[in-house]
Amino acid sequence: MLIVLDHQASEDEIDGVFAVARAHGLEVHRSDGTEHSILGLVGDCHSLSPQRFAGLPGVREVLRLSTPYRLACRAFHPEPSLVAVGDVTVGGPEVVLIAGPCAVESEEQIEAAATAVAAAGGRILRGGVFKPRTSPHEFRGLGEPGLRMLRGAADRHGLAVCTEVLGVEQIAAVSAYADLLQVGARNMQNFPLLDALGHASRPVLLKRGLSATIAEWLAAADYVLAAGNPHVILCERGIRTFETATRNTLDLSAVPVVKGLSHLPVVVDPSHAAGHRKLVPSLARAAVAVGADGLLVEIHPDPDHALSDGPQSLTAEEFAATANRCRMIAAALGRPLGGCHV
Amino acid sequence: MLIVLDHQASEDEIDGVFAVARAHGLEVHRSDGTEHSILGLVGDCHSLSPQRFAGLPGVREVLRLSTPYRLACRAFHPEPSLVAVGDVTVGGPEVVLIAGPCAVESEEQIEAAATAVAAAGGRILRGGVFKPRTSPHEFRGLGEPGLRMLRGAADRHGLAVCTEVLGVEQIAAVSAYADLLQVGARNMQNFPLLDALGHASRPVLLKRGLSATIAEWLAAADYVLAAGNPHVILCERGIRTFETATRNTLDLSAVPVVKGLSHLPVVVDPSHAAGHRKLVPSLARAAVAVGADGLLVEIHPDPDHALSDGPQSLTAEEFAATANRCRMIAAALGRPLGGCHV
Amino acid sequence: MLIVLDHQASEDEIDGVFAVARAHGLEVHRSDGTEHSILGLVGDCHSLSPQRFAGLPGVREVLRLSTPYRLACRAFHPEPSLVAVGDVTVGGPEVVLIAGPCAVESEEQIEAAATAVAAAGGRILRGGVFKPRTSPHEFRGLGEPGLRMLRGAADRHGLAVCTEVLGVEQIAAVSAYADLLQVGARNMQNFPLLDALGHASRPVLLKRGLSATIAEWLAAADYVLAAGNPHVILCERGIRTFETATRNTLDLSAVPVVKGLSHLPVVVDPSHAAGHRKLVPSLARAAVAVGADGLLVEIHPDPDHALSDGPQSLTAEEFAATANRCRMIAAALGRPLGGCHV
Amino acid sequence: MLIVLDHQASEDEIDGVFAVARAHGLEVHRSDGTEHSILGLVGDCHSLSPQRFAGLPGVREVLRLSTPYRLACRAFHPEPSLVAVGDVTVGGPEVVLIAGPCAVESEEQIEAAATAVAAAGGRILRGGVFKPRTSPHEFRGLGEPGLRMLRGAADRHGLAVCTEVLGVEQIAAVSAYADLLQVGARNMQNFPLLDALGHASRPVLLKRGLSATIAEWLAAADYVLAAGNPHVILCERGIRTFETATRNTLDLSAVPVVKGLSHLPVVVDPSHAAGHRKLVPSLARAAVAVGADGLLVEIHPDPDHALSDGPQSLTAEEFAATANRCRMIAAALGRPLGGCHV
Repeated sequence: MLIVLDHQASEDEIDGVFAVARAHGLEVHRSDGTEHSILGLVGDCHSLSPQRFAGLPGVREVLRLSTPYRLACRAFHPEPSLVAVGDVTVGGPEVVLIAGPCAVESEEQIEAAATAVAAAGGRILRGGVFKPRTSPHEFRGLGEPGLRMLRGAADRHGLAVCTEVLGVEQIAAVSAYADLLQVGARNMQNFPLLDALGHASRPVLLKRGLSATIAEWLAAADYVLAAGNPHVILCERGIRTFETATRNTLDLSAVPVVKGLSHLPVVVDPSHAAGHRKLVPSLARAAVAVGADGLLVEIHPDPDHALSDGPQSLTAEEFAATANRCRMIAAALGRPLGGCHV
Repeated sequence: MLIVLDHQASEDEIDGVFAVARAHGLEVHRSDGTEHSILGLVGDCHSLSPQRFAGLPGVREVLRLSTPYRLACRAFHPEPSLVAVGDVTVGGPEVVLIAGPCAVESEEQIEAAATAVAAAGGRILRGGVFKPRTSPHEFRGLGEPGLRMLRGAADRHGLAVCTEVLGVEQIAAVSAYADLLQVGARNMQNFPLLDALGHASRPVLLKRGLSATIAEWLAAADYVLAAGNPHVILCERGIRTFETATRNTLDLSAVPVVKGLSHLPVVVDPSHAAGHRKLVPSLARAAVAVGADGLLVEIHPDPDHALSDGPQSLTAEEFAATANRCRMIAAALGRPLGGCHV
Repeated sequence: MLIVLDHQASEDEIDGVFAVARAHGLEVHRSDGTEHSILGLVGDCHSLSPQRFAGLPGVREVLRLSTPYRLACRAFHPEPSLVAVGDVTVGGPEVVLIAGPCAVESEEQIEAAATAVAAAGGRILRGGVFKPRTSPHEFRGLGEPGLRMLRGAADRHGLAVCTEVLGVEQIAAVSAYADLLQVGARNMQNFPLLDALGHASRPVLLKRGLSATIAEWLAAADYVLAAGNPHVILCERGIRTFETATRNTLDLSAVPVVKGLSHLPVVVDPSHAAGHRKLVPSLARAAVAVGADGLLVEIHPDPDHALSDGPQSLTAEEFAATANRCRMIAAALGRPLGGCHV
Repeated sequence: MLIVLDHQASEDEIDGVFAVARAHGLEVHRSDGTEHSILGLVGDCHSLSPQRFAGLPGVREVLRLSTPYRLACRAFHPEPSLVAVGDVTVGGPEVVLIAGPCAVESEEQIEAAATAVAAAGGRILRGGVFKPRTSPHEFRGLGEPGLRMLRGAADRHGLAVCTEVLGVEQIAAVSAYADLLQVGARNMQNFPLLDALGHASRPVLLKRGLSATIAEWLAAADYVLAAGNPHVILCERGIRTFETATRNTLDLSAVPVVKGLSHLPVVVDPSHAAGHRKLVPSLARAAVAVGADGLLVEIHPDPDHALSDGPQSLTAEEFAATANRCRMIAAALGRPLGGCHV
């Protein structure tokens, strides 16, 4: 960590900063410039928040050189991580298609969805059975029966299964049916849940929080990695901004930024960010072009009668057409999509 | 809910919207204007997200007239709610001072803090024993031993106790020691936790999420209320914006806005929003002036050696001076602060 | 405009709203629902801000059905607008490449840049001669001599010229040399400048303001259109959000959203949004994939010695490689790029 | 400026950074830590953007120690600046009340407004005669005749005059009638306008841009100061965030932050931020409590018939009551308001 001192900082104030640093077992190197003096803290700063120093008397700015994450960092693991989900590999050359309805509603609905996903070259079937809801008065999902329907449909079509866990108490049940455990945006900093997923037997899909910086997102991944589960896939799904024309603002820049900082695979969910079906195909294409390792797309055999998020779901036909366009773009980047080349 | 149709919407598209609405048991009233036709949905829309209609073919905009919350709404409960925390009442004329260290560190530290809180007219002692941490590599709190220290110090000084619960599994243990259960900003939409707190025997302090709208915040309160616990206090603690001069941007407008929409008490935490000790006194004064029902302030007997958030903590002296200023401002509004008039 | 009344609105309050509406020459239609009454205002509301009614006693919400823009709207002009810049057409099938240095620095530099732009299939040479600077202490551009250098280099390579105007007083001089007049993000709501550009003889490239909603951006375009200049190209260049990993957050969703609302062409500037050279190629690809009509890319023959924005500028080699990738992606969408098919 | 190098930075890359720095006449001091090497640039960095180095190969982060502003900085001018507006002093002990209608509409309206302002202890009459409008289809103000009405009403009541200038061409005309020239939020980075105001004979009220950081705001003030006009008053009026319950989010933390960084006076405009009359009194109280040097409040003798922003304007009675409450709060801080003590 680097500490920049006020140019009026007194020697007593500087001694105070030294004291705090040493109390944390750090060495301090001081260098005096023309306008400012700088203190360099040497030692293990990972466990220390810059807030620890910001605002100490005489301190002007604190620059954290060590990131709040360690295990998710490229420096720690220079090669890209490959995450196996069932028999699919995420993070390799293939652009992996993950698709399905927002919520599992019935045997018929999930069977129709699985048929559409497989037909378009999808590899992983997603569907919610425990739904987080902004309002307690909305539909909250089918629970365990939904898990059985989801698994059955996936198996009949050779797909892996991805679904969300809302709490620690659901991990065991969901792990019995799913190949990939999704952590929703609202839970990105639910630390007891991340800890518990670090002990789970399944890979984790970690959605970015609506107002999470990329550094906080990678630090959240560190929770899972630190607890012993190295299989984490990151998912960009839009951040909250002032713009209301879309439900959230899809931050596609995050894909190349994360690729530079971390070894973890990154997929993109264009459906939740957009909130409108008609925006999904173009955003899906852009996500492949920007370098995402996969797409998480909401589809529904009959969007107009979906129990949730229908309006942002693609029909089977729209999904197939979108997958084909994305396949051509992936080909321009030398990557197969949905398991097959153009 | 009101649905505004595109002015090119076809009759088939309009029939589609009627179908969705009726599938949810709603009546539809249509009125055709010069530029647009509007559909008014009549019936119980609380359980329906506007997303259900946004993006249906032919739909231009959806206006939710029914809020995503019901029980937190003034229309449901016109009188302000009074929440009893130990023998203190939050939401009445008194501006209630809640203060203490970010984290309980030792018997000595919490005893010194409790002394300072009581001396300045504080009524509730706060201190973290389970700490949410952005990075898994930081100090996570003392756990249950910390709870005992907190309770002991509070009892010796006639204070009530407020502390954070991170997960469902901690509620019972924390309820055994604390009078007020805090839900942190990161957990504002941790729905299983909110549900469980709805069955708890203690009032809940619900912090606003970093990127939560006021409507989402009140809907989160509805989770607790809907599960049977009517004792909820809201806490504004800063939202995430582009400005980096402060850790977060304290949204003091939220206080009068919430007072207009809801019957629940609102307190303000100037410490986490500011992130710098020197900003806390002025923001605390502003919070009282804007009409907050209380303040949640971080103090520390020795901020420079605090294990967390030291730099935003006030010393005992700074806290006493701030409390006095706030007392004079409260008096200008005809409210006592810290139990005593000026 | 639709006005939703509080369900406790008194008849006097409702009469007050009627009075304001009639004072603006509008007819009012009232319809009473179970929870709320709604007033529909019929007549020309374009000249009326929703703020005019929001906050009137008894008013709960105001929904503007008429947009703050009229001329930029698809309803006004259903066919996409084609904007001629020199002999290049923007808004047609071709994805148009606009590139050049942030600032014109010397004959040699702009000649080298023009060579690189033409070689990669670029059609328009951009370069700043009047530079907006956050700090008055930074380099502010070469002024008119720079315009001559820019025009000369463009002519030698068969390119059109795009450059920024900072104020009304520069329009005439810049129009004498440039084919396309750029309005920077900071000037998006500089209304006297927009008015004056509405009387200019050149097309206008209107960059989106850092915190402008899409509706405000289109309303700004309406200023130019309303003053008589129909030749406006929109340019998405990133919005300001809480994320600091990139200089701004490129809002690629804005491209399909604008295409749905407006007939004006939209190009994307990935360089200013990213702020880092290494992010530009992937964001340029994404912009083409999402459906942009062109790209505005910063290049520099020798970025490490650029007087401004060097670090976000591509070298000639990087630009050529990026153009080739973008050409393949455009081809996947059936569009030529830089005048030639793959 | 401090440059933190990637820990894999090659010596060639480091030489590249040295070269750029020296090309700008800076000395470079290198210090190698365990994880990172740091380069300290010594010399005049004010004219250099951190972007100049960010993204150079081998560079991890750039920390600007010298701010983008110099003249607005406390280090440059340790004593608070006092700005004389007519015979009123802004920045001294008095909390100065500035009030008036959004737009001057008629002799009667401005006379009634001036009467109300003077009666409540206001010192400066504000009113718009050139109105910036998001849409070109809205009312744009009375122009010069409005200036005469404004001056006349102010003189009859012993008030100074504040009004907005939209462009360079208006400065002379407005200076002939007004004592204080307002720069609106949308023009905060209209650099030619700021330059010209630096040569004006009147003090300048500089509103903060909707998405301007505090550092950018102070750098904008530097434009005026650098051109020779030392009389600048800053005005916080709300920033753009995701929250839509208020028109903008009033950033009251900005007041103490600016007081710490700069010697310039800061006033607060609660009316534009709130967008709703009923929020203005509480936000005005909070602004005084947080330490603002003055308030800019919209009032209207007949808000329901105002041609613009009526709903956020206070009536004469509401304004008088608000002024009295603010006077009591100012007294608690030892400051007179509106020229008189409680």
